[in-house]
Amino acid sequence: MGILIKGKPVADAITEEVRKNASDLRQGGTIPKLKIVRVGDREDDLAYERSAVKRMAACNIDCEVLALPADISQADFTEQLKAVNNDDSVHGILLFRPLPKQLNENDLKYIISAEKDIDCFNPINVAKVFEGDETGFPPCTPSAAMEILKHYNVELKGREAAVVGRSMVVGKPAAMLLTKENATVTICHSRTQNLQEVTKRADILIAAIGKPNMITAEYVKEGATVIDVGINVDEEGNLTGDVNTSDCVEKAAMITPVPAGVGSVTTAVLAKHVVKACKIINNRGVE
Amino acid sequence: MGILIKGKPVADAITEEVRKNASDLRQGGTIPKLKIVRVGDREDDLAYERSAVKRMAACNIDCEVLALPADISQADFTEQLKAVNNDDSVHGILLFRPLPKQLNENDLKYIISAEKDIDCFNPINVAKVFEGDETGFPPCTPSAAMEILKHYNVELKGREAAVVGRSMVVGKPAAMLLTKENATVTICHSRTQNLQEVTKRADILIAAIGKPNMITAEYVKEGATVIDVGINVDEEGNLTGDVNTSDCVEKAAMITPVPAGVGSVTTAVLAKHVVKACKIINNRGVE
Repeated sequence: MGILIKGKPVADAITEEVRKNASDLRQGGTIPKLKIVRVGDREDDLAYERSAVKRMAACNIDCEVLALPADISQADFTEQLKAVNNDDSVHGILLFRPLPKQLNENDLKYIISAEKDIDCFNPINVAKVFEGDETGFPPCTPSAAMEILKHYNVELKGREAAVVGRSMVVGKPAAMLLTKENATVTICHSRTQNLQEVTKRADILIAAIGKPNMITAEYVKEGATVIDVGINVDEEGNLTGDVNTSDCVEKAAMITPVPAGVGSVTTAVLAKHVVKACKIINNRGVE
Repeated sequence: MGILIKGKPVADAITEEVRKNASDLRQGGTIPKLKIVRVGDREDDLAYERSAVKRMAACNIDCEVLALPADISQADFTEQLKAVNNDDSVHGILLFRPLPKQLNENDLKYIISAEKDIDCFNPINVAKVFEGDETGFPPCTPSAAMEILKHYNVELKGREAAVVGRSMVVGKPAAMLLTKENATVTICHSRTQNLQEVTKRADILIAAIGKPNMITAEYVKEGATVIDVGINVDEEGNLTGDVNTSDCVEKAAMITPVPAGVGSVTTAVLAKHVVKACKIINNRGVE
């Protein structure tokens, strides 16, 4: 019988550290600031925004939201985003994606400069994650998964990890972050044959599929650590992960719940990234 | 008993197709041109250069070499590279790396514009390989491995692949190219425990380690396809791969030799990339 490993203690520890760093920056005369850019008012963006605003307050980081109409044109949006990027008081920029269809993401990727791009939109940061270059900013969600593994002292070096899902927001960056920590990583996806066989080899299993409760005990190696990155909302509005937690907890050594797992760490990572960006920008200014 | 799959038929087929494309471009008034930029005169750079010059001639692609002194300064090199990039008659640029130590690669990465960067130096192309965006240019060596798999009709979809090695020139991009083709890919490296167990699961095994003859039959699944990307030179100047070919050919269904395997396809891919770059630049010009 394994144990549930919750996100809150991880988020609390990160928050405490970030708060200290933010206070140091303030004493040095710099007020770290996150700018959230939201287009339209999708419910999941709004939920994440509320949670991010609260976290920044807890971390002593200033936070502003720029809310733009859902039907904004490419030209107007480009102008707004450039203005945010050029604002010297802003150190980190979070742009909610996917953007509405009239906006072409490819033409917007370079507007947020790499050192303010705290959620990995700019190809410079995408390339850094691929290269294992830690000066960049990986997306917050796979970073949150890594923070949980670190907090609960899960050994990664030389061990087998399986990542189910190959998206650019979770699966692929998670695979690179695990490889950087010397895990032997298998990337699984919808075309993987005998998925159960593959996931059952994994000492660390990361589920980022988007199918509620898909991972049952048959997919889990005895004693594995299971990180559930799925966030699925059922008809009654309940959150469920990609992992059938009650079924898998029998076999896993450790398993993250949903809610109260990875999701609760994501905004803490966001805050950590803002402070990191602030330091990078300050150091560059000093040179 | 498996068969040796040689690079030459693959390179020949690519060369024929590229030659046709190059002739079409010439008839349209554009002369496709590769510029090779070499700093110093390392023997492996010179060998590759000779082979590339020959291949471009076979493909009806113009090719020029800019040879610079090994002790060139960062400022002078930057100026030279910018001039090459700004030359409208040049469609593809191959810069030999690693560069001498006085040159900082990080500060040079963005000089070759993404559409002329045919060997994946610019982070824009690095990010595209990671994303599986086929508008970019993956490094030529892993692309050559993929061309061989395609030419010999090796089924990838849903099958297990293992890549041994996690470099940015071969291992990691190979893993992404295989994932894009719907293989289930495991990235192995020096810290992988029980490497034999892991590689023996693979229907497709890519060796890019840099250790002569390391992969013996014990590492190979019965009936697997083995692609040997290793190029090791022994004391007598003989080339050997990372795979003990004569040992593994008993178990593998198909296996590439060294020499005459992946290496012979690399310059054909380079030529293919030059023509692709030429078309991209032309189309952009027309817009």
